Amino acid sequence: MSHNSFGHLFRFTTWGESHGPAIGCVVDGVPSRIPLTEADIQKYLDQRKPGQNRFTTQRQEADEVKILSGVFEGMTTGTPISLMIENTDQRSKDYGNIAQSFRPGHADYTYWQKYGLRDYRGGGRSSARETAMRVAAGAVAKKYLAEKFGMTIQACVTQIGDICASGPEGQPFDVNSVDWNSVEENPFFFPDNSKLEQLDEHLRDIIKSKDSIGAKVTVVATNVPVGLGEPIFDRLDADIAHGLMSINAVKGVEVGDGFAVVNQRGSEHRDELTPEGFSTNHAGGVLGGISSGQQIIAHLALKPTSSIGVSGKTVDLTGEATDIITKGRHDPCVGIRAVPIAEAMLALTLMDHFLRHRGQNADVQCDTPNIES
Amino acid sequence: MSHNSFGHLFRFTTWGESHGPAIGCVVDGVPSRIPLTEADIQKYLDQRKPGQNRFTTQRQEADEVKILSGVFEGMTTGTPISLMIENTDQRSKDYGNIAQSFRPGHADYTYWQKYGLRDYRGGGRSSARETAMRVAAGAVAKKYLAEKFGMTIQACVTQIGDICASGPEGQPFDVNSVDWNSVEENPFFFPDNSKLEQLDEHLRDIIKSKDSIGAKVTVVATNVPVGLGEPIFDRLDADIAHGLMSINAVKGVEVGDGFAVVNQRGSEHRDELTPEGFSTNHAGGVLGGISSGQQIIAHLALKPTSSIGVSGKTVDLTGEATDIITKGRHDPCVGIRAVPIAEAMLALTLMDHFLRHRGQNADVQCDTPNIES
Amino acid sequence: MSHNSFGHLFRFTTWGESHGPAIGCVVDGVPSRIPLTEADIQKYLDQRKPGQNRFTTQRQEADEVKILSGVFEGMTTGTPISLMIENTDQRSKDYGNIAQSFRPGHADYTYWQKYGLRDYRGGGRSSARETAMRVAAGAVAKKYLAEKFGMTIQACVTQIGDICASGPEGQPFDVNSVDWNSVEENPFFFPDNSKLEQLDEHLRDIIKSKDSIGAKVTVVATNVPVGLGEPIFDRLDADIAHGLMSINAVKGVEVGDGFAVVNQRGSEHRDELTPEGFSTNHAGGVLGGISSGQQIIAHLALKPTSSIGVSGKTVDLTGEATDIITKGRHDPCVGIRAVPIAEAMLALTLMDHFLRHRGQNADVQCDTPNIES
Amino acid sequence: MSHNSFGHLFRFTTWGESHGPAIGCVVDGVPSRIPLTEADIQKYLDQRKPGQNRFTTQRQEADEVKILSGVFEGMTTGTPISLMIENTDQRSKDYGNIAQSFRPGHADYTYWQKYGLRDYRGGGRSSARETAMRVAAGAVAKKYLAEKFGMTIQACVTQIGDICASGPEGQPFDVNSVDWNSVEENPFFFPDNSKLEQLDEHLRDIIKSKDSIGAKVTVVATNVPVGLGEPIFDRLDADIAHGLMSINAVKGVEVGDGFAVVNQRGSEHRDELTPEGFSTNHAGGVLGGISSGQQIIAHLALKPTSSIGVSGKTVDLTGEATDIITKGRHDPCVGIRAVPIAEAMLALTLMDHFLRHRGQNADVQCDTPNIES
Repeated sequence: MSHNSFGHLFRFTTWGESHGPAIGCVVDGVPSRIPLTEADIQKYLDQRKPGQNRFTTQRQEADEVKILSGVFEGMTTGTPISLMIENTDQRSKDYGNIAQSFRPGHADYTYWQKYGLRDYRGGGRSSARETAMRVAAGAVAKKYLAEKFGMTIQACVTQIGDICASGPEGQPFDVNSVDWNSVEENPFFFPDNSKLEQLDEHLRDIIKSKDSIGAKVTVVATNVPVGLGEPIFDRLDADIAHGLMSINAVKGVEVGDGFAVVNQRGSEHRDELTPEGFSTNHAGGVLGGISSGQQIIAHLALKPTSSIGVSGKTVDLTGEATDIITKGRHDPCVGIRAVPIAEAMLALTLMDHFLRHRGQNADVQCDTPNIES
Repeated sequence: MSHNSFGHLFRFTTWGESHGPAIGCVVDGVPSRIPLTEADIQKYLDQRKPGQNRFTTQRQEADEVKILSGVFEGMTTGTPISLMIENTDQRSKDYGNIAQSFRPGHADYTYWQKYGLRDYRGGGRSSARETAMRVAAGAVAKKYLAEKFGMTIQACVTQIGDICASGPEGQPFDVNSVDWNSVEENPFFFPDNSKLEQLDEHLRDIIKSKDSIGAKVTVVATNVPVGLGEPIFDRLDADIAHGLMSINAVKGVEVGDGFAVVNQRGSEHRDELTPEGFSTNHAGGVLGGISSGQQIIAHLALKPTSSIGVSGKTVDLTGEATDIITKGRHDPCVGIRAVPIAEAMLALTLMDHFLRHRGQNADVQCDTPNIES
Repeated sequence: MSHNSFGHLFRFTTWGESHGPAIGCVVDGVPSRIPLTEADIQKYLDQRKPGQNRFTTQRQEADEVKILSGVFEGMTTGTPISLMIENTDQRSKDYGNIAQSFRPGHADYTYWQKYGLRDYRGGGRSSARETAMRVAAGAVAKKYLAEKFGMTIQACVTQIGDICASGPEGQPFDVNSVDWNSVEENPFFFPDNSKLEQLDEHLRDIIKSKDSIGAKVTVVATNVPVGLGEPIFDRLDADIAHGLMSINAVKGVEVGDGFAVVNQRGSEHRDELTPEGFSTNHAGGVLGGISSGQQIIAHLALKPTSSIGVSGKTVDLTGEATDIITKGRHDPCVGIRAVPIAEAMLALTLMDHFLRHRGQNADVQCDTPNIES
Repeated sequence: MSHNSFGHLFRFTTWGESHGPAIGCVVDGVPSRIPLTEADIQKYLDQRKPGQNRFTTQRQEADEVKILSGVFEGMTTGTPISLMIENTDQRSKDYGNIAQSFRPGHADYTYWQKYGLRDYRGGGRSSARETAMRVAAGAVAKKYLAEKFGMTIQACVTQIGDICASGPEGQPFDVNSVDWNSVEENPFFFPDNSKLEQLDEHLRDIIKSKDSIGAKVTVVATNVPVGLGEPIFDRLDADIAHGLMSINAVKGVEVGDGFAVVNQRGSEHRDELTPEGFSTNHAGGVLGGISSGQQIIAHLALKPTSSIGVSGKTVDLTGEATDIITKGRHDPCVGIRAVPIAEAMLALTLMDHFLRHRGQNADVQCDTPNIES
């Protein structure tokens, strides 16, 4: 157990507050002899970094990651990897009303109740800044999985407000028709170029009204080995749900067809098997809690940012009614920046499950029917 | 860690196969001096028991639970509670085609690949029969939480196919207007009596066509203390998602407004605070991963049963194409029986988090603003 | 975490009280396809069984183990193995004074303080009876390790009171000159036949005086692969110490030369390496927390049984001074029966560490210098 | 689980290599609102710091600890506390022969085998430098336990080579007659002033011969609450053994009378209870794995430093025989510096067990007999 750790054999622990001297993580259980440099990690951090464009918070952080341990002569040693990012843009400001009252939709009230005090500067530990370290740890997992299995893990925003991504020529959205290069080039990580203008307009409106909007993110892993996941409580999909739901602002998680299954028939949902592989992938790559070798597909719903410029009702530390407006830099749609975080959490979950599976089952050599997943 | 365990301080481990001699669980970390008898557990098992009505599998199991340890003179002792149910209705039958080929939509193929063998009798470990022990363990948690906090944890089926529960007089469904006695009296655990006839007809059609249908279940906890949940990875909502997604057939989990947040504005979603408490509960009772003292509300999507009488394509152990029909007793809508299981998993998650929270934070006595949650 | 579980990837949980209906354990994380029958387990239980000779307690238990799950057609399936032994010899007796006062040297007082109640019948959960399930779980680990590595794990009693085992011809005791067949044939599991008569006489005296005596047990594992153990907190030797110290009555644990190192010089203690292997084994097979490939050697000190026929001072539940004599069947030297338990705990520790090591490091193929360990 | 973490509810993780840029730890699960400054931690680090006197290694490290997170306005917040010490004295030197061959008695060979590479600079991760972070984490635990219970945790060296500490006037050594101020003032942390001259001479001889010597350390906790420890595998004494055996160079651990129990009778060993408390403390404060409220007393045996100036036989990376001499700064008796580390590990174990116990059992209010422990 621990509150700020994730994973078992491959396990990482994050620490740090938004406005403390630094944030960091310790990644334990990393296989040795993986070539690893700061650049391998930095590229994902840059993707997530605030201040990238007008639709993400304008906080300016260098977000330069340092490797403090666990790498020797450019190779992982099998000992814990300590990563750290110094907080360079901690603007001195007046936290007066945030310190004295609870922002609605935020963790202010619950932290106060749980711990009897809170670091209110920038949200303290509950700040989305913590997620930078998930991205950093995820980079290590991604590197290993890519080299070992050719695995790729990619995410995109598939809905903002009521604007949904479609597939080519108005077909329903399909992860296999996404042009991932194009996704990285637009400020919304959106896979449907035909909607970019509409999104731009929508988000400008949101900003103008000092409000925010929710988003849906889709994440997919390709070249996943069959057999990952423990069948009962640590099912692969349960751990994916755990990991994705642990991202700030996430209120829902789906694997495969998700909530659409409620209105599906068994004869429609079940993915038939043929000598050439599965015919469909309604299951999202997990059967009975274990990876089937198909693509892992998951979706997550992110609530709209709660720190907005629209006045809201709340109470202060004495319990008196008051109003609050959050000033300063904030994302109009926090979901946009969740893209690399969702990738990281999926990578970390798969990495841990691969090591766990190998630990117990490396002896298995089954005379497998020739199914091409 | 362990594959077949759930929870940390309050931790239970299940064991057993559908057609082995028995199934059971060990519940560890139970506070001492809780009055506990087999009847306290049996009542929830009876709710979940197969063969209750025409819409659940006709397997006849007494499902009589025995307490083998951890209770002395009617009180829990603080030592592990071992619970066991003997399997009495293991019909001898011919498993020929199930043994030789992989049922689509089932764990057959993934177990085979992971372990190099599988107990194919009735699904072995992947059978929904395992969930009986979650209900049994959950009964212990429910008892404690009810006595300590007056907490109630209740679930109902809120959608089957395209038939959705509404609130009174056609209002949108609202957990606070559910008549829970009525829910227990209808065979669908459905909270909207006006749809019962329609459901009955729909499920008869499903049965007639030898097919199955998905369902949505809603679970709610009332009188939850504020402060439960660890803020980063073991957020209360992340652990709830983990627990609910670990139930067989679940493909999606929502907390509070869930996927509806994608199209909400920040000014709409955030639950404002007043001296009389929160104005709304879009968050579903969790803020920043910590319980706010409001009702915990979660929804889960269950896929249609994969074991159906409609022929499907698959491969056999040699990789050759073949067809398969699952004969015998099966649920047309497995979601119906998930109701007590969802309750149990939520109870178990809250129980563990209460003990964890108390372990770290029992010293906290904050001068709380007078918010009535 | 959990209080009644041991191990991580290979993890077992025990349950049950001395005078409840049964005791049992759940062994999780077992690799699949290991041939396993009840006889594989029973043979070790028989070794430990009470009532074997005049020097162990005369309780008559069949101690017949049943496999309730996790084995299909004679092979482990990778799912949890549930083992159970019914308690058949729960003599009805008057527990009056045990129920009302605290036996000195026992867990009576501490259980009472911790839990606010205790199952006083036969010691309840703190009874040595619990250790039968360690032996059962250990049998599974032993079987795997024997088949995978040809590993043997054997223990013997090397001291009782002031009678110490010597090596052949009065040489100092050396695990490599033990005749293990002979050890199993004498009632003390003692490796030095020249002392058997002396021991017999000594223990008769102990019994006559209604007292008890301590013992030292030595346990050794041969054919241990190099590389097991995590370097910092879960060092192999730290986990061995944990496992052995968790056996009832153990008050000290040594690895290799143990406390003798206090008076050794560095030039004497360090085991030099040669192309033919290590020259000596002062370290007991562990360097820097990781197995070196040499024999693992550990020693444990067991206190004398506290349940004796000599009157002792104590207090009753009201805090009043009183005297207590424990009547009934008890071991004059509980250390004798610890032999198979020590073997089991070492096997379980090595098994878990093998799976953990394989999970993280199965990719490593180092160009090893040719050291024959 | 994790390899570089210790504890469950109160859990810390260390990272860093001897000659990397820094070492550090993350302490998770710390109760909130504990006043904590760097000075609270620094005082224990200074005690352990190398270069203090002629009998410890001459490495000069400022060892200045920084708190990077988890403390706000001088109070702990309940979120993870990140502590870091920069490595300032990483002398550039030629590691030639250490890089190419395995030092006997060291982790060189086992790391190489386990991970396929090793950071050989100063021992890398296996360096005693790692233990600084245990002392730092332990300071947090000590602070809480002192304020909550008035608990003190103190250690001293009770034997070096064949020189044993005695009590006053030649009585046997007794922890209750130690003058702790005097212990801190002598360079050996030795509680028997009458032997200081003899020790000084002995260690000069050891240094002159370029050799090293073992030591025994005794650690004692006073004002320990009754009820800490989980009765089966996570017994308090088992976890103490785990923690102490995880300290570099430790080869044996005893609780209470330790190995002396082998030659004790039950009537002698058992600690009788009286209305005024226990009459004796042979058990070392733990009964049935649970603290009795008496002093916790443990002993540990530390092997002589393996890095010595006496030439030893070994093999190089190609498996060829060679000789090795370790040059540079090293402790003649590594046991001396283990004193604050032993204190820290005992504090960390007790702290974790207190939180665990409170989590499960805070409801217990037993009508305790009036025993003054």
